[in-house]
Amino acid sequence: MTKQELIDQIRKKRSFLCIGLDTDIEKIPKHLLSEEDPVFAFNKQIIDATQDLAVAYKPNTAFYESRGAEGWESLKKTIRYLNNLENPVFTIADAKRGDIGNTSTQYAKAFFETLNFDSVTVAPYMGRDSVSPFLQFEGKWAIVLALTSNQGAFDFQFIKNDENQEKLFETVLETTKSWGSEENMMFVIGATKAEMLAQVRKHIPNHFLLVPGVGAQGGSLEEVAKYGMNSDIGLLVNSSRGIIFASNGLNFAEKAREEALKLQIQMAKLIC
Amino acid sequence: MTKQELIDQIRKKRSFLCIGLDTDIEKIPKHLLSEEDPVFAFNKQIIDATQDLAVAYKPNTAFYESRGAEGWESLKKTIRYLNNLENPVFTIADAKRGDIGNTSTQYAKAFFETLNFDSVTVAPYMGRDSVSPFLQFEGKWAIVLALTSNQGAFDFQFIKNDENQEKLFETVLETTKSWGSEENMMFVIGATKAEMLAQVRKHIPNHFLLVPGVGAQGGSLEEVAKYGMNSDIGLLVNSSRGIIFASNGLNFAEKAREEALKLQIQMAKLIC
Repeated sequence: MTKQELIDQIRKKRSFLCIGLDTDIEKIPKHLLSEEDPVFAFNKQIIDATQDLAVAYKPNTAFYESRGAEGWESLKKTIRYLNNLENPVFTIADAKRGDIGNTSTQYAKAFFETLNFDSVTVAPYMGRDSVSPFLQFEGKWAIVLALTSNQGAFDFQFIKNDENQEKLFETVLETTKSWGSEENMMFVIGATKAEMLAQVRKHIPNHFLLVPGVGAQGGSLEEVAKYGMNSDIGLLVNSSRGIIFASNGLNFAEKAREEALKLQIQMAKLIC
Repeated sequence: MTKQELIDQIRKKRSFLCIGLDTDIEKIPKHLLSEEDPVFAFNKQIIDATQDLAVAYKPNTAFYESRGAEGWESLKKTIRYLNNLENPVFTIADAKRGDIGNTSTQYAKAFFETLNFDSVTVAPYMGRDSVSPFLQFEGKWAIVLALTSNQGAFDFQFIKNDENQEKLFETVLETTKSWGSEENMMFVIGATKAEMLAQVRKHIPNHFLLVPGVGAQGGSLEEVAKYGMNSDIGLLVNSSRGIIFASNGLNFAEKAREEALKLQIQMAKLIC
């Protein structure tokens, strides 16, 4: 999906919601466990119930890998289902990969060719040759971790660079943005540090940001929009557990929709 | 495998060789492609031909993931085979994972429980709560990226900390070492920067180091031993392509053994 197609979907749906499919088999409703593929059955119902409210879906690969080859099959069915929806959605493999060049190319193949995701999240620690391979695929995106939503973000991401006084996440933004373009790179900026978004926007005014941490992790949507929105909207705000595990009853999909709708209504107000 | 057991194997085999099973299906000998699982068939022959010379094996997960569920099955067969060798070997899932706490726990389950590896490589960028979940499994190890062997290492890992003038990889060593112990943490230090090993040993004199970059990437074994070895040996030196793709003929396993043997002979001389 191109940047313009994503913006069009955001304007059409009046939503910049990304739903995180962190489908932990131990947390899904018990009645699904008799299905042939409980995880896919869960995802399918969540997607069906929310696809008019969300512009993006983000399976976190950890929850699939922990089930081995079987989990990988659930992921494959999920991305295939997402790629065949009537209204296109932006798809994110939240995989946080990154390795030396020839190896990153293999990861890019895994997510862009074998699975056909639009984008992959990428860890920047190993530098340019670990990120660039993800930028060599036409129409695909690398979403680079810059400022994450967790407490551990304070361990390294705020280290001040002796040379220019920038924080590490700022150097990551400044350095990596030159490796690609606004058409094939986004950045992860956690909602739990929303006040930092103004600072982030000084470095990358036009890039899309993937913003996790709203909901279960405590970030505020209004703050994120206030400091992070640009004229293209420029935001994909993710909620995972707060939506998909809203209920574990028979009506889990309906309850997920209710939570997604609450966010979409707020988002519609924030979209100019 | 415990630290003492690893040291015992090193002394017994007079080797600190780790063989990287970066099994790219496009590079394996053509005659294997008619096998039911060509990647596992390749790995099995490589392992059989080298197991008396190597103390560790390190499949890089990218080469398996790029083949989807099928690749995951090859990885499962490979780790099962490694875990049933007569002389135990240390096993490393070179996966470079790292995510927020509940998600890292899923990755740890994937590699320590579903697949039963001894260790996983972990990216430090997201900080403590992304690394700690890998340290909660009895007898298992996290191998943290500190100073990698690729060119991109210079993009961020050498950034000087304004507070104490340490380079980022040094701060990563100093900070993360307190999260675990010498019994459940190792660090990745690239052989291509062997002269930095003396500096690394100031921060972590006793930890084991996983050292990639000897061979295809150009690092020198003598330099690595000179600056990195400690009284426990304290090194696992990895070679991947230089061994496993030494030949793509019918005799590939024999040729792989020859390359492994060259390194093992050098290593035997370096072990006091």
